[in-house]
Amino acid sequence: MILHGYWRSGASYRVRIGLGLKGLAYQTAALDLRKGEQKAPAFLAINPQGMTPALQQGETVLTQSPAILEWLEETHPEPPLLPKDAQDRAQVRAMAALIGCDIHPLNNLRVLTALRQEFGADQATVDAWAGRWITPGFDALEVLVARHGAGWSFGDRPGLADCYLIPQLYSARRFNLALTPWPRLLAVEAAAQAHPAFQAAHPDRQPDADG
Amino acid sequence: MILHGYWRSGASYRVRIGLGLKGLAYQTAALDLRKGEQKAPAFLAINPQGMTPALQQGETVLTQSPAILEWLEETHPEPPLLPKDAQDRAQVRAMAALIGCDIHPLNNLRVLTALRQEFGADQATVDAWAGRWITPGFDALEVLVARHGAGWSFGDRPGLADCYLIPQLYSARRFNLALTPWPRLLAVEAAAQAHPAFQAAHPDRQPDADG
Repeated sequence: MILHGYWRSGASYRVRIGLGLKGLAYQTAALDLRKGEQKAPAFLAINPQGMTPALQQGETVLTQSPAILEWLEETHPEPPLLPKDAQDRAQVRAMAALIGCDIHPLNNLRVLTALRQEFGADQATVDAWAGRWITPGFDALEVLVARHGAGWSFGDRPGLADCYLIPQLYSARRFNLALTPWPRLLAVEAAAQAHPAFQAAHPDRQPDADG
Repeated sequence: MILHGYWRSGASYRVRIGLGLKGLAYQTAALDLRKGEQKAPAFLAINPQGMTPALQQGETVLTQSPAILEWLEETHPEPPLLPKDAQDRAQVRAMAALIGCDIHPLNNLRVLTALRQEFGADQATVDAWAGRWITPGFDALEVLVARHGAGWSFGDRPGLADCYLIPQLYSARRFNLALTPWPRLLAVEAAAQAHPAFQAAHPDRQPDADG
């Protein structure tokens, strides 16, 4: 498998964690989003949306991190990223979607670029914008982790929600957000920092990371 | 089942379509997002995130439309919203996520309110902002529907991707976006306009719709 991605992209980071938790080997094909490499014709032939990540196996290309992670779970069920009970699965997917739909899309590179271009936003304004969406999302997640977590976001094993949470915490730090209001989320992050799959997926460990 | 939602919310609209395609009856509990009713204590007790939709069954509450739709598919498998083959499922989920993560989150009410508050955006600026995200998303979807659709977004039966596409087309019209560049998406919309589940889910048909 070849993962087309960018070291600092939260969506690529999620898929790296998922691949690592499943124990799957893959090659990295790096695209520098700052240089617009995802809009080059060669990559558009792989993914017409021109966004990362994309997971390629021969002629087959999977796109969109939520779809890739569900595919990983269906085709490589062990160890599971989702619990067995349907209601529990919905809870875990809700935590993932809270990050994947309500936090991350508002703070990624193309949106911040648009805020700078359209509204002349400076770095402090961009940081405040990011915090505006991260804060209520993390407030809700803190409640959900208190309710459902036991060392990880849901239960006592890493899973789908953690694939989303850890990259979002990494992103929040880049926006200079103080994370002290969310001790339960930080406890999950501490568990992840000691876990080999999360360690290997960290942006700084990727071949295309800035020196 | 009780669906807590808002007539014009794209995420509530998706779940209404999913419930309708599955042939499931439900009651509507309306929350007026314009009045902030989703942040009232009574609703925060149901969903600590204070967002719609939420699907309640007795003590159980499911949140986040992607999680609710996957739960519907797991607990009420017929008729299916997803194809059987894992790769096809990933393709349908990717089309759903393209809308659910890359288009809709940038154009919902709370974000447009923030643009007005933080940057003094007027209606024309808001419309242009929405178009900025809808256009590349629809461009990519048009390619994907050409590749995979046969009357609907994927194949010849309505499914998960259509639950996302139809509300996003409705939303795009509200932002005064001309939809002529995407004839294949409009053809899916025409099919939906003739389908009872999509008809019943339309915002104008909801009990809380503006008169």
